[in-house]
Parts: sequence; structure tokens; C-alpha cells
Amino acid sequence: MKKLVQLAFASLLVIACQTNEKPTVSSKALSAEEKIDSTHIKQFFNTALTEGKSYEWLRDLTQNIGGRLSGSPEAAKSVVWGEKVMKEVGLDSVWLQPVMVPHWVRGEKEEAHYTVNGQKKDVAICALGFSVATPKSGVTAEVIEVKSLDEAEKLGDQMKGKIVFFNRPFDDTLINTFQAYGGCVGQRVFGAAVCGKYGAKGVIVRSMTNSIDDFPHTGTMSYRDLPKEQYIPTAAISSKAAENLSADLKKNPNLKFYFKQSCETLPDAPSFNVVGEIRGSETPENIIVVGGHLDSWDLGEGAHDDGTGVVQSLEVAYLFKKNGIRPKNTLRVVFFMNEENGTRGAQEYARLAKVNKENHIGGLESDAGGHTPRGFSIDANDGNTKLLQSWKKLLSPYGLHDLDKGGSGADISPLKNETVTLVGYRPDSQRYFDYHHTSRDTFDKVNKRELELGSASMTSIIYLMDKYLYDNTPVKP
Amino acid sequence: MKKLVQLAFASLLVIACQTNEKPTVSSKALSAEEKIDSTHIKQFFNTALTEGKSYEWLRDLTQNIGGRLSGSPEAAKSVVWGEKVMKEVGLDSVWLQPVMVPHWVRGEKEEAHYTVNGQKKDVAICALGFSVATPKSGVTAEVIEVKSLDEAEKLGDQMKGKIVFFNRPFDDTLINTFQAYGGCVGQRVFGAAVCGKYGAKGVIVRSMTNSIDDFPHTGTMSYRDLPKEQYIPTAAISSKAAENLSADLKKNPNLKFYFKQSCETLPDAPSFNVVGEIRGSETPENIIVVGGHLDSWDLGEGAHDDGTGVVQSLEVAYLFKKNGIRPKNTLRVVFFMNEENGTRGAQEYARLAKVNKENHIGGLESDAGGHTPRGFSIDANDGNTKLLQSWKKLLSPYGLHDLDKGGSGADISPLKNETVTLVGYRPDSQRYFDYHHTSRDTFDKVNKRELELGSASMTSIIYLMDKYLYDNTPVKP
Repeated sequence: MKKLVQLAFASLLVIACQTNEKPTVSSKALSAEEKIDSTHIKQFFNTALTEGKSYEWLRDLTQNIGGRLSGSPEAAKSVVWGEKVMKEVGLDSVWLQPVMVPHWVRGEKEEAHYTVNGQKKDVAICALGFSVATPKSGVTAEVIEVKSLDEAEKLGDQMKGKIVFFNRPFDDTLINTFQAYGGCVGQRVFGAAVCGKYGAKGVIVRSMTNSIDDFPHTGTMSYRDLPKEQYIPTAAISSKAAENLSADLKKNPNLKFYFKQSCETLPDAPSFNVVGEIRGSETPENIIVVGGHLDSWDLGEGAHDDGTGVVQSLEVAYLFKKNGIRPKNTLRVVFFMNEENGTRGAQEYARLAKVNKENHIGGLESDAGGHTPRGFSIDANDGNTKLLQSWKKLLSPYGLHDLDKGGSGADISPLKNETVTLVGYRPDSQRYFDYHHTSRDTFDKVNKRELELGSASMTSIIYLMDKYLYDNTPVKP
Repeated sequence: MKKLVQLAFASLLVIACQTNEKPTVSSKALSAEEKIDSTHIKQFFNTALTEGKSYEWLRDLTQNIGGRLSGSPEAAKSVVWGEKVMKEVGLDSVWLQPVMVPHWVRGEKEEAHYTVNGQKKDVAICALGFSVATPKSGVTAEVIEVKSLDEAEKLGDQMKGKIVFFNRPFDDTLINTFQAYGGCVGQRVFGAAVCGKYGAKGVIVRSMTNSIDDFPHTGTMSYRDLPKEQYIPTAAISSKAAENLSADLKKNPNLKFYFKQSCETLPDAPSFNVVGEIRGSETPENIIVVGGHLDSWDLGEGAHDDGTGVVQSLEVAYLFKKNGIRPKNTLRVVFFMNEENGTRGAQEYARLAKVNKENHIGGLESDAGGHTPRGFSIDANDGNTKLLQSWKKLLSPYGLHDLDKGGSGADISPLKNETVTLVGYRPDSQRYFDYHHTSRDTFDKVNKRELELGSASMTSIIYLMDKYLYDNTPVKP
């Protein structure tokens, strides 16, 4: 029996032993200065994981306010909320930056269906942001399926009176799902602009996701420079509906598709960026900005897009304060308004920075979801890119291996110039497009530890940027 | 208006540009041979992500069979299922390895409660595997809270007639959650053995998780060499219940806790490992084994633990076949039985390997969940460890950065000797203990792409092991 028990519990010892070394850097490999950095970084992670506030902030923002599209009452509430939480963290100053934002409203719930072999099939659909409404009786027409804007353009007058169905799926072989998004999103944004020109009656687009499911993904669109009389209604249908419709069209090319939506674009509405800062101890005139966007689409709660980015950005300041570290440069936290359909907040922030001759030496944006950290994407000159990449040994113990050149984010990229170092936070991307712009983007999809690890990751790179960019980016005369 | 539209859609261009370079290795950095390897690895990933079978296999195993504790009818069904899917993949041979396994049954649903200030509080509880039942009327006693086995041991006779409550929480500051598990699991496994000795009436243990929630986590325990008359019932309570009980005890140290369970250990039952292989083209006498465990706890569906490991292991063979690659060595897939409470399948597999003088040159186990891939943990001699680490440039484009020395897994570690190279698959660990051994470990918690990326990751390292270990591990005389 004794031996049996020993055998039985061999597996437990294996479990205890199968974990790897602790995620701290071998101290041999570090200089004295790097050891200090390593200690601070560990503190940021410890504090985030044991005394983090981001998860409860996110719960409040997503569950008590919910989706907050620019111009909506919820967006207005989120501004009040943002000012309140920034003040609670005890930033040196907190203020609102007024900005006029687009105000599009969805109206009544959309509907769509078609009939094949006498069977009516309901279609999960949602209007795209900025789309016009259908007539009250809806739009009914035959469907032409295409896979790209080019293919649509070639159809020309053939699409007159038809509904054009853009059905290019994500390329699942791309490991980074944002790349797959980049390869498809054009049909969502410009489909109606191309097809309105040739007299199509409407445009429907396959949802932007790897997943085959029943959830339609909204998102912004543009009629570009079409005259208003050529504007046509456009909507996204779920990926499963797209697969089904495509199959049904092969057997029933003359089926008629019906959809109805009552969205409209109202006059621009007043809103705000929410801004707060910890004043720098040595060169307060140099600014490092960290932010996410406060607005979201209306269908879900705007959790991964971009509630997580908002609360993580504030947690950066919180973790500095909680650990008694005052930045040398001014650390500014910004909750940007209107990233989803206009980036007016970002434009206004950059405009004011220029008018006020502010010197931004660095920026960090979190707008790629709140999943487990993978690293950062760097948009900087070669010298600063190499500097940031030299921190790999300090960051990799926390799973932060990706430090490649790449874009930063829609809200901070208007700050780009020759000297500023812009960084995008890059969590794991696999699950992001399961939720993005849908009713599923809710608080319960965010894991507390993943969120907090993200906050600490962001704080760590901001700490390093504050310490080392400081000497690297001279103040302009 | 035109300018406004351009401004509005600046953000979209940013989205398209913000993704980093494609995840392929810069061809400059690779030798001719490595370029071939890089191409094959890309093929494995492409096939897994577009024609993978693992997700549907997992749906079938978890939703049509469900939880499958050793000795249960569900475990028996899973053996039949395992043989069937291995044959469908077209392995050269598939067979069953008989093994007698422990047969513990939970009996009726457990219950627990206590009363403070006249208010009855129900407690989410579940018996631990191998625990004895309470008397039919349950156990009611005062509670002593401790944080470790040592602390309990020091109490000695003070615990006589009491329920001992082990309440050491996970250390949330450990980035790898398996480390936190390793630091706590001893109280679950050996709590009753320590306290039974001193006449405690029962042991309750805080659930093994970072999360504060309502789900009790079961798991195996052992009375070690206690005489049977000292066996006492033991169970896990949810982390939230543990927090509440601890708080209530501070104010009401004499409160009485009640719990009842009717579990029992039946005679050992016959079961099987399911084994299949693709015979090696050059040195078929050398074997590389890849596996996960078919049994699971009874509370959920055994999805992350370890349905994902089972289906990923079979997908390794599927991806070899689908890409027309025959391994040089024999590639053996094993669905191990009884990892959770006995590792009898693993012991029997290793015993037969010895009896039959099989030469295992490598092994890979997937038993750490089906989340997004992070890397592998290597248990091998220094030469082979360095060899595997030299593949980093081939693996890192797929997010596989972790290639540290460490354990492999409970099912393959009995194969350990001086020459064999044992590897543990290491996906991201943050969410694993949200589900582990609970009713929440269900199919819907597994993300299709994360699962498939894991299959392809495992196939890639098996491909490299097959190609390069081949020359590195001489067949013993």
C-alpha cells in the first residue's frame, strides 16, 4: 500500500517540479543600474497583481455605464467617470479637453432575412457606423457576392439595383490576427463608397473575425467623396450568416435579400478628452503620454475595446504613485474620445500639443485588447528603437518578448515626429476578434490577471522610457 | 467634408499599419537546412489553422462524453473514442494497453454550511479524490484555520475533534501560476494525513486558484501511511467561501462548520492507455512519444485538463500525415489513463517500455491547458537542452519564446534516463487555474485558434526532435 501511494503521488511531485525557474533575470547578466530597474519592475508587477485597481475600474466602466459611442449619453457619463477616477488616483492635475465629435445613432434594432426553397432564414446583422438608414420598408434586392473592392469596382453598372455582398474571410494562417483584420477591413470601410457610385441598393459585409459565429461586428465606414444622393445603406452580417448566404447563393443565385435599419448621423456633439498628469521631478516640460480610448461601439460594453486600455493607462500612474516613484518627465494619462469613428479626440490632443508647444518625448497606447501580454510595437527613430530593444532582458521574464518595429496606435500617432518615441502595447491577439465591435465585448471576457499583467508591463516600459529617453531626446530649442 | 473624412479615417490606416512584420524568420539568418525546417513549420501552422481537427475532436470528447474519472463509465467510453479517432487519422497501428486503475466515486452532491449571528451560510464544497465519506449525518465541529502543513503539525492534539481549515492562498505575484499551485497544493494532498493522525474530525481546504469565485476545485489527496481508522473526510471549499469563512472566524472563533459527503473508493477497475503510432522510415526502433491524459476529474468536462492535450497530441500525427511527412523515428501517440489520481497508465507505459526494451529518444507531453502557446520546458541532458534551445529562431515567430530547463509532465517523466529528451508543452498559464478541476472546465473555455496553434507548436518541435535528435541520441547497445 505504501508503495502504491508513493507511485500515485509521483505525479504531484512532477507538478511541483514542472514549473520553470522564477521569472527574474539572472543577476549576473545585469549591470548595477539594471538591477535597480529589475527591482522596480518586479515591484510594479507585485503591486498590480495584489493591489491593482484596474479590474474594479473596468467593472464600473463597463457594467455601470456600458457601451459609449461618441455623442451618446453613456459617452458623456464616461467622461465624468474618467475625471473622477483620475482624481481618486491623486494625479497632480486633471482636466477636460473639449472636442466636437460625430454623433451617429443606430436607431431601432436592425433586421434581415431571405428565403430559399420556401424557408425564411433570419440573418444576424448590424448597421455600420456612419451608414444611412434604409427606407422604412427596408431594402430588398438580388445579391452579388464579391471578395474585394477591386472585384466590386470591376462589376461597375452590373451592380445597379443589387445588394453587393463583400465576403472576404480573415486569412487564418496569419498568426497575428490584426494582420488578418488589416487584409479585410477595407471592404467594410469603403464597400458602400465603391458600390454607391454604380447605383447598388445596399452593401452587406462579412463580419471582421476569425471565428465562425452568430455575432455581427459593427465598425466605421466612409462614403468618401460620394455625393449624398449616392449614399447607400451598409451593414455587417455575422460570419456564420455570410457562410450560409454564400452557400445558398451558389444554389439560388436569384434569391432576394432583405434588410432594414434606421440609423442616422446627427449634428456633431460636444465631448471631451480626459487628461491628467503627474508632474515630472526633473524635466517637467518633457511629456510622456499613456492612453487608451474612452469611447466604444454601442453593441457591447466596450470592455476589450478599449475599456482595458483606459484602466491600464490610469493604472500606470497608480503604480508609480503606489511605489513612491515620481517620474523625471511629466507622465500624462489621456482617455481619448472618439477613436472608433473619427479620432477627433486624438486630433485635438495633437493640435493643442502643437499650439501649446508641448514637448512629447514618448507615448504609449493600449488599444489591442486586455489579453495576456506579449510585448510592444515600437515607432521611433533607429537609435531609440535599439534603446527600447535593449530592455528585452528586463522585460522577457514577464512574457514580453515582442519588441519589433511597428505602429503605435490611432490616438497617439498624430504626435509622430523625428524624435518622439511612440509605442503600442501588444497583448496576445488570438481572442481579440472574437469580441471586437460586438455585443460579446463585455466585462466577463477580461481576465483579471491578464489585465493587471498588462498594466504592469506598460508601467515597466514607461518607467524605462522615463529614465533613459530622458537623456536621449534633447529638448528642441 | 473631404478633409473631415480623411481625418476620420486616418485611424483606419493606423490600424492597418500597426501590426508588425509577418512572423516568418528573416531568411538571411537561416542556413539552407533551417530554411527547409522553417518551411515545414509554416506548413504545420497553416494546416492546423485551416484544416485542423483538434477542435471538433475536443467538442466530441468533452460534450458527448464529458468528465471521465478513472474507473467511470465515461472513462471507458473515452477509451473507445480514443481508439476510434486514432484509427480515423490512419496511424499505422493502434492498440490498447490494459491497466488497473483506482476507482473513486463522489456519490451524492456534497453540502456544507455554518451559521453566524443567526444567519446560515451555504458553502460551495466538493470532496477531494480518495477522501472517505463523512458519517451520514455529516461532520459538525469547530474550525481551526491554518496556512500550512507545518502549522497544522504544530497544533498536535489541539485539533482533536475539530475541523482543520487550510487557507493558504496562491501567491499572486508569481507570474507562472503553476508555481503558485506548487506552493499550495501540499495542503490539499496531505492535509488529511497530517490532521487525521491527531484526531481531527475533518479537513477543508481553500481551492487551488488565483481567482476569488464560487467554484470549488477538487483534486487528489493521500492518507499516506495512516492506519485506516485515522482516515478523516476532506474537501475543498471555493476561494470566496474560504475568504468569508476566514473573516467570520475572526469574529466568531467558536462557530460550527458542517459538511457532508458520501464518496468512496471502490475496488480497482480495468482500463487502458490508448496507443497509436506512425512507424519511422529510417530508425523505427527509436521512439518519440507525444501524449496527454484521457481521464479527467468528474466535475466539469475535462476540457483544458486534459482534453486539449489529448487532441493536440493526435493532431501532431495528423499534421505529419496531412503534410506528407513521414518521421524518421517512430512517432507514438499515447492517451494516458489515470493521470489525475494515480498515474497508473504512465507507470504501466514505462514498465512495458522497459520490458519490451523500447528505445525512447524523446517525449512531449501537453498537460498544462489549451491556452495560447508560450513555449516548452526541457528535461534533457545539457547537450540536447542546448540543441533544443538552438531552435529558438525557428519557433519564436510563433510566440514560442520559452525554452527553459524544467520538468516535462507526470505521464512521460517515468521514461526519464540519461539520454532521453523529455519536453513539456507550456501554453500561457494565466487562465488555467480559473478552470482546473472544477465544473467550469468545459469546452466553451477553449479557444479554437489557441488550441490549433498549440497543436502546430507541438508538431514543430516534434518534427525538429525527429530530425535532429535522430543523430544525437545513439541507440544503446
